[in-house]
Amino acid sequence: MKVEIIAVGSELLTPSFQDTNSLRLTEGLNARGLEVSFKTIVGDDEPDLARALKTALGRARIVLCMGGLGPTEDDRTRETLAAVLGRRLVFRRSIRERIRARFKSRGLPMSASNLKQCYVIEGAEVLDNPNGTAPGLWLETGRHRIALLPGPPREALPMFENEVGPRLAGLGRGFSARREIRLTGLGESAMETRLKPVYDALPPAVNVTTLACPGDLAIRLTYAGAGPRTAAEALLDRVEEGIVRILGPWVYSRTGEPLEAVVGSLLKARGLTVACAESCTGGLIGHRLTEVPGSSDYFLESAVVYGDLSKTRRLGVPAALIDRHGAVSAAVARAMARGIRDTAGADIGVAVTGVAGPGGGTARKPVGLVFVALARERGTTVTRNLFLGGRAQVKFQSSQKALDLVRKVLTPAPERTYNKARTRL
Amino acid sequence: MKVEIIAVGSELLTPSFQDTNSLRLTEGLNARGLEVSFKTIVGDDEPDLARALKTALGRARIVLCMGGLGPTEDDRTRETLAAVLGRRLVFRRSIRERIRARFKSRGLPMSASNLKQCYVIEGAEVLDNPNGTAPGLWLETGRHRIALLPGPPREALPMFENEVGPRLAGLGRGFSARREIRLTGLGESAMETRLKPVYDALPPAVNVTTLACPGDLAIRLTYAGAGPRTAAEALLDRVEEGIVRILGPWVYSRTGEPLEAVVGSLLKARGLTVACAESCTGGLIGHRLTEVPGSSDYFLESAVVYGDLSKTRRLGVPAALIDRHGAVSAAVARAMARGIRDTAGADIGVAVTGVAGPGGGTARKPVGLVFVALARERGTTVTRNLFLGGRAQVKFQSSQKALDLVRKVLTPAPERTYNKARTRL
Repeated sequence: MKVEIIAVGSELLTPSFQDTNSLRLTEGLNARGLEVSFKTIVGDDEPDLARALKTALGRARIVLCMGGLGPTEDDRTRETLAAVLGRRLVFRRSIRERIRARFKSRGLPMSASNLKQCYVIEGAEVLDNPNGTAPGLWLETGRHRIALLPGPPREALPMFENEVGPRLAGLGRGFSARREIRLTGLGESAMETRLKPVYDALPPAVNVTTLACPGDLAIRLTYAGAGPRTAAEALLDRVEEGIVRILGPWVYSRTGEPLEAVVGSLLKARGLTVACAESCTGGLIGHRLTEVPGSSDYFLESAVVYGDLSKTRRLGVPAALIDRHGAVSAAVARAMARGIRDTAGADIGVAVTGVAGPGGGTARKPVGLVFVALARERGTTVTRNLFLGGRAQVKFQSSQKALDLVRKVLTPAPERTYNKARTRL
Repeated sequence: MKVEIIAVGSELLTPSFQDTNSLRLTEGLNARGLEVSFKTIVGDDEPDLARALKTALGRARIVLCMGGLGPTEDDRTRETLAAVLGRRLVFRRSIRERIRARFKSRGLPMSASNLKQCYVIEGAEVLDNPNGTAPGLWLETGRHRIALLPGPPREALPMFENEVGPRLAGLGRGFSARREIRLTGLGESAMETRLKPVYDALPPAVNVTTLACPGDLAIRLTYAGAGPRTAAEALLDRVEEGIVRILGPWVYSRTGEPLEAVVGSLLKARGLTVACAESCTGGLIGHRLTEVPGSSDYFLESAVVYGDLSKTRRLGVPAALIDRHGAVSAAVARAMARGIRDTAGADIGVAVTGVAGPGGGTARKPVGLVFVALARERGTTVTRNLFLGGRAQVKFQSSQKALDLVRKVLTPAPERTYNKARTRL
């Protein structure tokens, strides 16, 4: 059963807006064993919208259409679909009562423009919208299942989950099976080369997609075969194991969690605390660590020491050391990591100093040169990195490196050794 | 002349990937006075792809198709379009030489799989791809202009600019005219209500779209009429002025710049420095300020003082004050702002302390309660805010508020008064 998602709205055809609802809808469809074959984005223009709807009905059996159900003149999805299907629009008093009550609860009269939202395509069911005035519609014809949902995610997504999802039951495989492996410290092409044996032996029922940005890779495995759930899970387990056996040292998550969440769980599990000294990352490491709820359990503080003076005053980095080696140096990174660990009273101190660019680079210290250091009781380690990309990319990669250093010292050695031993094969 | 963009790739039909190339292509098309009417996303499945291409050729005159030009078996765009058009594929020796040279420059032999990239649809021009092996194609038929581009943005976007753009010359209006006004501190519906007089008098040649997230609003004006560039610019100026007259106090940019860049320019222009004390934002303010190249000129440091002890040790916030009022309080926010200003030796100190959630809220201090303070020579001000949304939204809104406080003290008073006076009308 082919599925098409249509996103309606002229703003979605500009350079600044993107349909993001469809990603969540796709997730919901996949969870029920339905795959999306086409996505269409079309504006408010009625003839264009009619064309898009006709095309979708011609090539898909399930059509989910979002947007264009509002009260304004350029909201034409309901009317256009009725015309395409050759069906009438029928006034529903119950919808008017609901909209009226909604307005009344805010002490407002119902606006006349909302009257058009009370019309329903003949034969359609009304889908309740608890977060807005626009009701959705569900229509089953001999060949098609069609859902109309409003555009705002806050309205559309709950309606999909509560109203559309249950109506799709039994149309798909009924379950989804997927895996997400995330890694850092390895380039995309190096990963591809290493994974060639896995890809060559990939069962046809497993799809692999890779999401790459400098500093982070995600490998997603999706089961796309028939068979029961147990067979799907077993197959995915096997492929996942094969990948982790090869890429183990770089893998930080097998559940799709971001690195800051993985580091957070490790710190929490061991009852340890961390503090950061950030120069070129400007606060990004602290920001990422504190995106995780409950991070106050292990994150003490971050000293964003952009100027040399702050490095000295906040962290006790000797001015002479900065003079001799420069602020971007292994020696200063070490001193920063030790300084933040000591002054914050943390178990682990991490520090970053580098040239984020675009200015400030020299032949000896080019843009992208970043020293990342980690201090703990046992001692201090420092890494020298040369990151490619613009300012934002350099900052992100630096934060990844810092978080990954923390992850590595917290990951039990046997596990890491095991993975390393296997890669040597 | 209707334009359709097709993005090809099965990964684009999963919940994790989004076609982003089309946004940049749209920008390039708009700049030439061409608007996009349809966007289609389709997988690697050949019959589906053939359907999508046929549909596009039926409803658009300009079709830009990205993806599926690679060397692997599931790259079928070239072959499928040839079949749809009923044209042959012809081997081009010159492409083979180019690919071979590319491999040779890396000391590698050309892989046999790349041979399929040497085939060209009969009658098509080859579009050079300096960043990859996949050449693009440009085809003009009686009715259509069709471009095939590879999927990776690094390859597709330069090819669009260098090869496709010039071939579109003369097909559109030849220029784009747009404006972007950004504001903070005002809700979306409050904005809509206030702008009603502007919308009611909007010239039909001007389109307005709004991009909203909690804490930030962008209003984009696009000229969509005929007429010459001067008329377009004059019309947009008029609408823009009308909006700024009403929303002045909340407008931080009339050029689409983010708030951190606006604040950076203001600090730089006045030769002033800033330092931050961040609790619930966790480093986000520093991160945002340092996303702007050259921020080391005015950004001294940020003390991410997550724990109470750090607030006392780093900023000299009296422990008794925290005991009495709690860490999330106006008194502590003030003390943090003064503390960071003094200890960092900055002209301006900003501080944030709040409950980001999801945990940690109480009846008296609920999730979303955030105090934002600003200290300067003249004195210290503090604001109490109750932000809605999840942890990330609360953090972002807090950082917006902090940056906007800085903006406001740096914006010349006459300008602000002017705007305020006008809103009263």
